[in-house]
Amino acid sequence: MALTVVGSIAFDAVKTPFGERERMLGGAAVHFSLAASFFTEVRPVGPVGDDFGDEHIGLLESRGILTEDIERVEGGQSFFWRGHYDFDLNVAHTDDTQLGVFGEFEPKLSDAAKAADTLFLANIQPDLQRQVRAQCGAGFSGLDSMNLWIEIAKDSLLAAVGEVDCLVVNDAEIRMLTGESNLARAARAVMDMGPRAVVAKRGEYGAALFTSEPGTDTGDGGTFFALPGFPLEDVRDPTGAGDSFAGGFFGYLDGTGGDLDEANLRRAMGYGTVLASFNVEEFGTERVARLGREEIDERFEALRRMTQFEGLPARRD
Amino acid sequence: MALTVVGSIAFDAVKTPFGERERMLGGAAVHFSLAASFFTEVRPVGPVGDDFGDEHIGLLESRGILTEDIERVEGGQSFFWRGHYDFDLNVAHTDDTQLGVFGEFEPKLSDAAKAADTLFLANIQPDLQRQVRAQCGAGFSGLDSMNLWIEIAKDSLLAAVGEVDCLVVNDAEIRMLTGESNLARAARAVMDMGPRAVVAKRGEYGAALFTSEPGTDTGDGGTFFALPGFPLEDVRDPTGAGDSFAGGFFGYLDGTGGDLDEANLRRAMGYGTVLASFNVEEFGTERVARLGREEIDERFEALRRMTQFEGLPARRD
Repeated sequence: MALTVVGSIAFDAVKTPFGERERMLGGAAVHFSLAASFFTEVRPVGPVGDDFGDEHIGLLESRGILTEDIERVEGGQSFFWRGHYDFDLNVAHTDDTQLGVFGEFEPKLSDAAKAADTLFLANIQPDLQRQVRAQCGAGFSGLDSMNLWIEIAKDSLLAAVGEVDCLVVNDAEIRMLTGESNLARAARAVMDMGPRAVVAKRGEYGAALFTSEPGTDTGDGGTFFALPGFPLEDVRDPTGAGDSFAGGFFGYLDGTGGDLDEANLRRAMGYGTVLASFNVEEFGTERVARLGREEIDERFEALRRMTQFEGLPARRD
Repeated sequence: MALTVVGSIAFDAVKTPFGERERMLGGAAVHFSLAASFFTEVRPVGPVGDDFGDEHIGLLESRGILTEDIERVEGGQSFFWRGHYDFDLNVAHTDDTQLGVFGEFEPKLSDAAKAADTLFLANIQPDLQRQVRAQCGAGFSGLDSMNLWIEIAKDSLLAAVGEVDCLVVNDAEIRMLTGESNLARAARAVMDMGPRAVVAKRGEYGAALFTSEPGTDTGDGGTFFALPGFPLEDVRDPTGAGDSFAGGFFGYLDGTGGDLDEANLRRAMGYGTVLASFNVEEFGTERVARLGREEIDERFEALRRMTQFEGLPARRD
């Protein structure tokens, strides 16, 4: 199986109560790809500038990420984001955004990128998301977005949502997109547009999955599943947590043959949660870049123990 | 087993986007007692005024609640709260509070109330909580509080927290009480004061349980468990949800013989979640007052299915 992701490949400047970095590798497609790389073959698509060096390509390739579709634009600057977080790490404050080469981006997928089994459209302008979707007939596709596009490009975003299988956004954005304050109703309204699944990201509270499959759970005939964020005593930088979640989620699904059975979707939610938790332990990509599959599986197992009612393992001394 | 709860027995005026009520039975001890009544013998303690009629006593007694320790103060008025909720049902706006007979409350527990196996100190002035705690040697005790007492009576509240086994408050209040923004660290700081368990209520996001028991879960040697709020398409009035959660939680623990094993604590979290979910479906006590144990167990089972990774039941057609 193979996974294509389209989104920002960027540099970030971030300040939190626990430190700061003036310029570090970032961007949705980078965080997504690193997280997904533990589970499948992942191919990020997007433009970078001259400032994107061989060491950045090297970092991605060291994780087995396929980098041929990262397009270096001569004379251009990479996407740049500057932001900070205060006491409440759930809220990112944007101080500067420079689109750079992303301002002129006209996605044209390579044959290899088009041939992906799974496609993820990270948070970019929804017209671009639709152009990419039209080029890639992946059997399973997902989309992230943000409040900005709901405000200034809602019609295009609604069309894009209608063309994917799974929406993955913050819960406030699901409410905003549908104008429905109740999350269960809002998720159902999204599924009425086309997607068969909706993942509501909830920051430190974790994530919830709604599907329109006949299920045993909800009043409307669908299923519901939710996981808390993994409890951590040290959270240093939440930047990219949502993208790492999506990378773990779609990466695991693609890596397990695109099995969309409810049980596999729930395991994918678990791996998304685990990858997001490693992401926030250090700045930018620092923690995930040196992560190992064994650590991931250990934390997945701990998360499973933290969320089950019965059959608890013996306590340790 | 027997459970004593001390707290407000009140009338509420509430307005939400889904309706309003000018005067309905409410108060923490009422919501708590109704929820706990499905699991054990519960005895609310607190003062009411002349306005508290036989029909209100009758409603409590119809659920088997022991009402002898509800003290009617001649010439007095019952505690009264007026509030409203806007689009975001997670935020209560208080418009009026009249302490009434609660302003003169000097708790003096009856022998029956003192003999309880389990004691819950609902949200009242922390000096009063300590007076009650000193009179009741219950083997398991819990305490709720609010931001007001953290602001104006912090020392007394910290002393009260140190005298109970389990703190049950909103997650923002755990942060505020400890001055620690990270919830896992904040919960540990509370447990360092005395309690062996901390329940963080999270509104629609559910609730999280931290214990200081040696566990398999967290880095600090304790255990962590979390449940989402039960997904509902119709939420009409969140007033009393936290008290219903606590009533389900402590009621279940007392009703199962005070078994504080991790698995039983987790089931208690589940019953707390279920009772809170019924509470919010209609105004005030309306839904819980006509609830049946079978409905509770059905929803508990649904919640269990919504939160487990494996062993999912067969789907329905």
